Amino acid sequence: MGRRLLEPSLDPVAYAFVHRLRTRFAETDAMGVIHHASYLAYLEEARVAYLRDLGHPYDDVRGGGLDLAVLEVFVRYRQAVRFDEEVEVRLVVGAVTGATFQIAYLLRVADEVRATAVTLHACVDGSGRAARLPGWVREMFGG
Amino acid sequence: MGRRLLEPSLDPVAYAFVHRLRTRFAETDAMGVIHHASYLAYLEEARVAYLRDLGHPYDDVRGGGLDLAVLEVFVRYRQAVRFDEEVEVRLVVGAVTGATFQIAYLLRVADEVRATAVTLHACVDGSGRAARLPGWVREMFGG
Amino acid sequence: MGRRLLEPSLDPVAYAFVHRLRTRFAETDAMGVIHHASYLAYLEEARVAYLRDLGHPYDDVRGGGLDLAVLEVFVRYRQAVRFDEEVEVRLVVGAVTGATFQIAYLLRVADEVRATAVTLHACVDGSGRAARLPGWVREMFGG
Amino acid sequence: MGRRLLEPSLDPVAYAFVHRLRTRFAETDAMGVIHHASYLAYLEEARVAYLRDLGHPYDDVRGGGLDLAVLEVFVRYRQAVRFDEEVEVRLVVGAVTGATFQIAYLLRVADEVRATAVTLHACVDGSGRAARLPGWVREMFGG
Repeated sequence: MGRRLLEPSLDPVAYAFVHRLRTRFAETDAMGVIHHASYLAYLEEARVAYLRDLGHPYDDVRGGGLDLAVLEVFVRYRQAVRFDEEVEVRLVVGAVTGATFQIAYLLRVADEVRATAVTLHACVDGSGRAARLPGWVREMFGG
Repeated sequence: MGRRLLEPSLDPVAYAFVHRLRTRFAETDAMGVIHHASYLAYLEEARVAYLRDLGHPYDDVRGGGLDLAVLEVFVRYRQAVRFDEEVEVRLVVGAVTGATFQIAYLLRVADEVRATAVTLHACVDGSGRAARLPGWVREMFGG
Repeated sequence: MGRRLLEPSLDPVAYAFVHRLRTRFAETDAMGVIHHASYLAYLEEARVAYLRDLGHPYDDVRGGGLDLAVLEVFVRYRQAVRFDEEVEVRLVVGAVTGATFQIAYLLRVADEVRATAVTLHACVDGSGRAARLPGWVREMFGG
Repeated sequence: MGRRLLEPSLDPVAYAFVHRLRTRFAETDAMGVIHHASYLAYLEEARVAYLRDLGHPYDDVRGGGLDLAVLEVFVRYRQAVRFDEEVEVRLVVGAVTGATFQIAYLLRVADEVRATAVTLHACVDGSGRAARLPGWVREMFGG
């Protein structure tokens, strides 16, 4: 589908950052597992934690008049995640261009792969128009 | 707890407006029923439908620089609501003062009471400060 | 990424079913638009409406001891969807095999494309194990 | 409204347990703050953390064939909670009877009160019928 998305590795070593979270009961569904839409909030929480870790809290980015919009999301659900499990979300930035970048994700519980994902992002200004990626994004990720 | 909240009637005739919605699978939880937090989105959806029906779409209210903040929420869960059920949300405005108003709700499925609720609202301006209720709110609800 | 996903058409005529829904305030985020995770609930709501329309309500499917698990989700966000907009979700089933099928989606507001998406599904039994697709699924979609 | 709910104290010392969480971007709304429905997930996350801390993980409770149903929820929103804030959720169990118990909550950010809440719970068996509270609940909370 259009532009090639990254292929997320199953090897934890391939990732630059690890975020850990515990699943909520509110995120389960009547199949008794975490609902598939909840994973998108997990990916986002990991991205925000990564930005904070890099010294660029998302609130600062937004305070600067820019937003990091989500252009595409791909998730592959490999094994169900359950209530009260501790999920390790690993991520790595790649495919940085002047205007977009991708993030690949690996979700594991106790060393067992549960899902992989990729998101494609662009910078937008206050009115939702595409903007050039901030210098620190391009520098940091080599775009 | 502080200010007295309305006591929602179990009599459908006591309500001024009816909104119907169908529950989503995403709103269920591992107990196999609709998660209790989802009811708050149902109440809100009914409020928005009511404003639209009154000729005051919420977007217009917000466009006018005001927001209708939620100050308090009370929900009594009487019978579980299930996936793919059609819920009838009835509501009536009451206890209107110069600055706040309450809404009482009755949630039913096929004439069976499932929940009752009350919300307390105030008008706030763009910076979150309390504002006087717009004239049309006070006129319409007799505050 | 692995198995080829369908390429959703931008032509509304290419879709077999139309579902309409109105976005909720609870689904917005601080960027002032519908949060990207909410789209997954929209796709699911459209799938459930389609099954009902086909005479196979999802509750019957589940009552038969089967669940239609989501294996993969891909969403391309083309234009933001806003609060209180009426979204038309079109869908068509494709790529049916003995064990999986895909659904392509087109999301529009007032004839304007907002997003496209694809989901990949498999049948699972009560213990989460893959099962052969029910006959009616294969017959109906020609797998 | 019926049975008297606890009056949550504004004094942090009145609470038995503290849980900390960080708000998510997915939980914000177009008013730029955390949506009021998200607080219910925060209360639930704190309850689950408390049960784990007491040596009775919620999954064990559910494995024993019982669920802790939510009968009533009351939330008073005092000051908005914002994206990426660290919320301290304090809770204390009270008003324990043979069949129900209440939990009072205090939500603060950096020592500033943001919300108070009360939930009323009952034990239900697998078919959703009310059951006597497990001994450990009554012992622990003095019901």
